[in-house]
Amino acid sequence: MISRIAILRNVQRCGPKHCVNCSYSVTSRQFSVNAVLGREPVPAKAPPKTVEDINKFVLNAKYAVRGRIPLLAESLKEQLAQNPESLPFSKIINANIGNPQQLDQKPLSFYRQVVSLLQNPEIVNQLAPEDLAKLYKPDVIERAQRMLKDVGRSVGAYSNSQGVAGFRQTVADFIAKRDGEPANANDIFLTSGASGSVAHVLQLFCSGPENGCLIPIPQYPLYTATLALNNATALPYFLDEESGWSTDPHQIEEVVKSAIERGVKPNAMVVINPGNPTGAILSADNIEGIFEVAAKYGIVVIADEVYQENGFDDVEFISMKKVLRVLQKTQPGAYDNVQLVSLHSISKGLSGECGQRGGYMELVGFSEEVKQVVLKLASISLCSVVTGQALVDLMVRPPREGEPSYEQDQKERNEIHESLKHRSSLLHRAFQSLEGVSCQKPLGSMYLFPKIDLSKKAIAKAESLGMAPDEYYCKELLEATGICTVPGSGFHQVPGTYHVRTTFLAPGTEWIESWKEFHGNFWDAHRD
Amino acid sequence: MISRIAILRNVQRCGPKHCVNCSYSVTSRQFSVNAVLGREPVPAKAPPKTVEDINKFVLNAKYAVRGRIPLLAESLKEQLAQNPESLPFSKIINANIGNPQQLDQKPLSFYRQVVSLLQNPEIVNQLAPEDLAKLYKPDVIERAQRMLKDVGRSVGAYSNSQGVAGFRQTVADFIAKRDGEPANANDIFLTSGASGSVAHVLQLFCSGPENGCLIPIPQYPLYTATLALNNATALPYFLDEESGWSTDPHQIEEVVKSAIERGVKPNAMVVINPGNPTGAILSADNIEGIFEVAAKYGIVVIADEVYQENGFDDVEFISMKKVLRVLQKTQPGAYDNVQLVSLHSISKGLSGECGQRGGYMELVGFSEEVKQVVLKLASISLCSVVTGQALVDLMVRPPREGEPSYEQDQKERNEIHESLKHRSSLLHRAFQSLEGVSCQKPLGSMYLFPKIDLSKKAIAKAESLGMAPDEYYCKELLEATGICTVPGSGFHQVPGTYHVRTTFLAPGTEWIESWKEFHGNFWDAHRD
Repeated sequence: MISRIAILRNVQRCGPKHCVNCSYSVTSRQFSVNAVLGREPVPAKAPPKTVEDINKFVLNAKYAVRGRIPLLAESLKEQLAQNPESLPFSKIINANIGNPQQLDQKPLSFYRQVVSLLQNPEIVNQLAPEDLAKLYKPDVIERAQRMLKDVGRSVGAYSNSQGVAGFRQTVADFIAKRDGEPANANDIFLTSGASGSVAHVLQLFCSGPENGCLIPIPQYPLYTATLALNNATALPYFLDEESGWSTDPHQIEEVVKSAIERGVKPNAMVVINPGNPTGAILSADNIEGIFEVAAKYGIVVIADEVYQENGFDDVEFISMKKVLRVLQKTQPGAYDNVQLVSLHSISKGLSGECGQRGGYMELVGFSEEVKQVVLKLASISLCSVVTGQALVDLMVRPPREGEPSYEQDQKERNEIHESLKHRSSLLHRAFQSLEGVSCQKPLGSMYLFPKIDLSKKAIAKAESLGMAPDEYYCKELLEATGICTVPGSGFHQVPGTYHVRTTFLAPGTEWIESWKEFHGNFWDAHRD
Repeated sequence: MISRIAILRNVQRCGPKHCVNCSYSVTSRQFSVNAVLGREPVPAKAPPKTVEDINKFVLNAKYAVRGRIPLLAESLKEQLAQNPESLPFSKIINANIGNPQQLDQKPLSFYRQVVSLLQNPEIVNQLAPEDLAKLYKPDVIERAQRMLKDVGRSVGAYSNSQGVAGFRQTVADFIAKRDGEPANANDIFLTSGASGSVAHVLQLFCSGPENGCLIPIPQYPLYTATLALNNATALPYFLDEESGWSTDPHQIEEVVKSAIERGVKPNAMVVINPGNPTGAILSADNIEGIFEVAAKYGIVVIADEVYQENGFDDVEFISMKKVLRVLQKTQPGAYDNVQLVSLHSISKGLSGECGQRGGYMELVGFSEEVKQVVLKLASISLCSVVTGQALVDLMVRPPREGEPSYEQDQKERNEIHESLKHRSSLLHRAFQSLEGVSCQKPLGSMYLFPKIDLSKKAIAKAESLGMAPDEYYCKELLEATGICTVPGSGFHQVPGTYHVRTTFLAPGTEWIESWKEFHGNFWDAHRD
């Protein structure tokens, strides 16, 4: 290493702006380089980092929701933008991801009015009362003022890493009302969507190959991806398609036993209810069976309940916490060891505020020491976005009957609900009419997961292309119609079965018709 | 496992609302339990998970910015709320964290007006033009409309996992202008603050004990905490306090060589410029020396440049990318292997929008394959909050001269800048006047990091309490004055030296006076 000269001393700084034409430049340095004595002309060099140098757990993680088919859709979208006539369709239908506001779903006005006031509270002082009243009903203004008091001063300040205390209390009140059982704001953590909660919990309990996590098959790929990043062991248990994707406690216990025999600790178990991608809603019976296994083996239950508002039939959603509390009361002492993490999110349901990144987790049955570790982990990423936290508060405490915004809010909610319900049954009927396709009736969530009994010819064709058979079907569907879905192989499935996950969020019915037409053609072209 | 009866079939669902009094209850289940034949009264039970079961890397991670002293401050704050007379001060001064809007700093109006329109675009149609003009200047409305077009439809939709393409282009334009060197939107990733970027990069290149990362001492604890979570090896290099916390390439190379000898790969090196907690600004000389080592050993340079707007003296901030490009031009071929990740954030500078969680990283010198892995990693957490992404766009492209909002925006920026500069020099002068305290002149960032030559008596007292000596000083300061700071031990420091990190964000001068008074008393009470 050689001595150097300072090229920059005491140059004028131009205030808070950036210096566009920095005084450090090729010309100035050329001068300095020439003035330096003894510099080696070309120093020693090591090769740059390549994919070979990357953490292999990151390399191995797969995330199908944004995998090969969606990437192909992106490139077709670009092709359409440049040359609209070059493809047999005019637009991409993004049925691959539950992203309601990318498609037809409008944000709830009450939420957005309150959050716009949190961003710009000055507006209340800038307008005459009669003009202000045109924009915001009194409960909007009151809510925003209460929430600003909760955050201290500004949504631009870091909050407590666990989340704003006032918002956590609103969540606790919501849970208490939903379940008829007490809830404590100290057990609530506000996170960046449910995925933020999942990352925290799995990092705590499932890291390293000796630690396992039971995941339902089919599953939401976030879980396998996060476990892969943590180099933890995924322990799959299968949902039973024929009985509406129900869980089987016997089979779950077998998975647990077999893991233990192999030296893998079954530390946690994911339950997705309502189901993604299955659309199923678990019965109280099913949930009780899960807790029985959890109690017996000391397994943390992760209840992914982000679709709890998305019910489209007469089957009721029952929270896992409610079932746990009932079990604890009816069999005193028997379930008091059970630990439950319940997740919720503003991304789904009638809110659909995916891009705003809000969610919560409730920790049930954990010691204060464990909660302190969760808090430390949360503090390393400082806090989740404060407006996302505010939207959690708004989601769990919408306008109530008698409040000024109630009627409009109800109207908007009912429209969204009816529209989702209508489209889910329309799409379900379409699948029932297709040759070789069967599909469970959707009860909740935003997805259908039809089973497609692909022919040997189709399977052979897929293999020749180096693709999973259902991935081939999805690719052909995309290239013929612009409909982007996710192959069942991305969610895992019973070997030898093939599925496709599609949302029913896309507006209109034309795309459903074009899917039907595609399917007929595909089926004919691949008959054995 | 026993057979079960279904208690819930075909109950009426009450539309999109939650069912407050769920039909699944203790009473209904009591009936069902009594009806079940053969149920074991109390099933087998395993113990619940405790701190012993938690991932030890999470347990070992430390995060001093929100560590013991700030936790004590939280409890004192609660005590004050309940009993205002019980302590010798009336409020807590949070000088422990760079959280400007928690204290005196107001958000920039232009940012907040645009973001409030992104949240509630309807407002433009709800007011007469003359009323609208009272609220928003034309460039605010235009900017919001452009940005809504960029996001597609709504800030409530997930964006591309890399970030909204239009916003990334704005960032690339900013970098190009700042450095006078081209920048590409495809190299930009929008992230949840800079901490989101750090988590991604370290997870890629620094995971497992065989992979090391050079970090400056003193350092920002995010880095040691994230490395601890990844079980990677932190490779400390010391900044030289006496020369204004400069870096020494010779010493850095020694650290690299010694790591290699121990079998640890020095994959990455963190450079914080302007410095946190030091407040130093690196010279071009210093930066060139760093790149020389990076080129020689193939080390990824992580340039934490989040304080690039926070300069308070006549020393210019020069981006590491600019220096790299100049080196590459003046010595063709010599530095073309260097890989750089440059971080920026909306949390600091004149924006101070910590709670809105926006930031970016620019990847320089990486292959397309590596960038695809970064994209996959980003996609597992779906996307960073879209309004945070929008604020990055606003930060890097504020109103320009001649645009309607320019004057007001400049006025606000100048006020913030002057106020920060004033308080930094006020606090610096105060430290210079204290016995046993020395403090480098602050050039940038939001912090002072005075060195306190604690007496043997103070050190012995701290040890008797099981505390680090500077932690003891901070605790005494907090308990006497309400001023919450972070002990230097949380940032690491040259052994045998003691420091305190304080922000200079708190308004007023009273707290500085009370610190001076405390220090005099502390010094007298601990004389050897």
